Amino acid sequence: MELKVIAYARNGHTDKFGIPRQSRADSPILTRIVFEEDYSIREAFRGIEGYSHLWLIWGFEEPSSREGEKQKTSGIHHKLPTEDWSPTVRPPRLGGNKRMGVFATRSPFRPNSIGLSSVKLIKAYPRPLPDGKGERWELLVSGADLLDGTPIYDIKPYLSYSDSHPDAINGFAAETANYELQIEEKEFAEVPENVMEDIRYILRQDPRPAYHDDCEREYKMDYSGWRVVFRVEEMKIIIVRIEHIETN
Amino acid sequence: MELKVIAYARNGHTDKFGIPRQSRADSPILTRIVFEEDYSIREAFRGIEGYSHLWLIWGFEEPSSREGEKQKTSGIHHKLPTEDWSPTVRPPRLGGNKRMGVFATRSPFRPNSIGLSSVKLIKAYPRPLPDGKGERWELLVSGADLLDGTPIYDIKPYLSYSDSHPDAINGFAAETANYELQIEEKEFAEVPENVMEDIRYILRQDPRPAYHDDCEREYKMDYSGWRVVFRVEEMKIIIVRIEHIETN
Repeated sequence: MELKVIAYARNGHTDKFGIPRQSRADSPILTRIVFEEDYSIREAFRGIEGYSHLWLIWGFEEPSSREGEKQKTSGIHHKLPTEDWSPTVRPPRLGGNKRMGVFATRSPFRPNSIGLSSVKLIKAYPRPLPDGKGERWELLVSGADLLDGTPIYDIKPYLSYSDSHPDAINGFAAETANYELQIEEKEFAEVPENVMEDIRYILRQDPRPAYHDDCEREYKMDYSGWRVVFRVEEMKIIIVRIEHIETN
Repeated sequence: MELKVIAYARNGHTDKFGIPRQSRADSPILTRIVFEEDYSIREAFRGIEGYSHLWLIWGFEEPSSREGEKQKTSGIHHKLPTEDWSPTVRPPRLGGNKRMGVFATRSPFRPNSIGLSSVKLIKAYPRPLPDGKGERWELLVSGADLLDGTPIYDIKPYLSYSDSHPDAINGFAAETANYELQIEEKEFAEVPENVMEDIRYILRQDPRPAYHDDCEREYKMDYSGWRVVFRVEEMKIIIVRIEHIETN
């Protein structure tokens, strides 16, 4: 089957480093789902605001810009040809040195590189195009684990009576799901408070590849026009500096 | 993106009529997910039995048989060209006469005709091919809302900490989710008990198109080699007869 891109995700994750490993209901991180012209039809969204949560079905491919916006050049964009899969993968949360079957993981390196995320719906609205040429429909959602520019193939309402299994057994992912790092408090007056809140949320989830555990090592993460440099000592994040960067 | 079929669903639903409208955790209906040769690799399933639930990502297209099995000819198979979508659809549970936006429904008539179902995993195992030419890996699952022969594009583990939102608000689907019909007790000694149990489950969910409410009308549903003829009086199912049919 040939999938057509119906929308692109737009958010502060211009860098693969820092994207949460799964979508999370408590995430403050906002993503705009910007519909392509053919699907940007008011009627197609009738009733959608009655749902608190949605499913996004999306592609792990190299992100593209939507028409009318400049091509992003920053960030570590990754091209995943769909031929490139392996029967086993090394989940980062298992330390990156234990192999699991690809169908027992959410790894991107699958036979078909499609991703699945549940997100909170905040609002559905039309937004004028920057050049005054009409408008595009958008959904504002929170909790998406997506790179900026990710292509979206489908949006479905979340139905709790068929999609929610709170007692599901999570296999090897169970033991590794719940821990948070602490952050050493420090002032970064030049960073807007909402961006700073997102950065703190991302760092608390421990964005490091799990096979690194070197307290001297400095990590760099780009988010929403800022480059965050940090170290991790035991279970504590030390932000070294935050610099403004060019994203367009 | 071009999706490759990795497996086909095999179950008693040779007929579109009777397929549950969503996957249901309490369903007794079993489906075998039979992997195509290229994906039928023992290692790809390592760790999968640690999960109680899985996601299936599948296609609403005309089903095909897998290699080595006869083409199914019974049932109302439906071809859905992906060009065939409309911004609004008429959900059967709303009586079939109220239009909702396609992104607020799980309708098959979407820009990309992909479906999403959570199922219970019972077992992963290799099974010999009928002609003695090697084996194929299969997953046995329950609760799938799929037509026999449905192509499968991806299998993912269900992660309760990111996928389960028991308090999600279900929009217009909320009011219509929970009711069951009663079944008038009658003996059908020639039908195997496990098939009879599935048939009773399907009938209790009310498989009628919602815009029909004629107690004289006889409905026909094919399931697992049997044709079930029934009527509905008020909230009660009356099974008129069950006949054996040829499915291959």
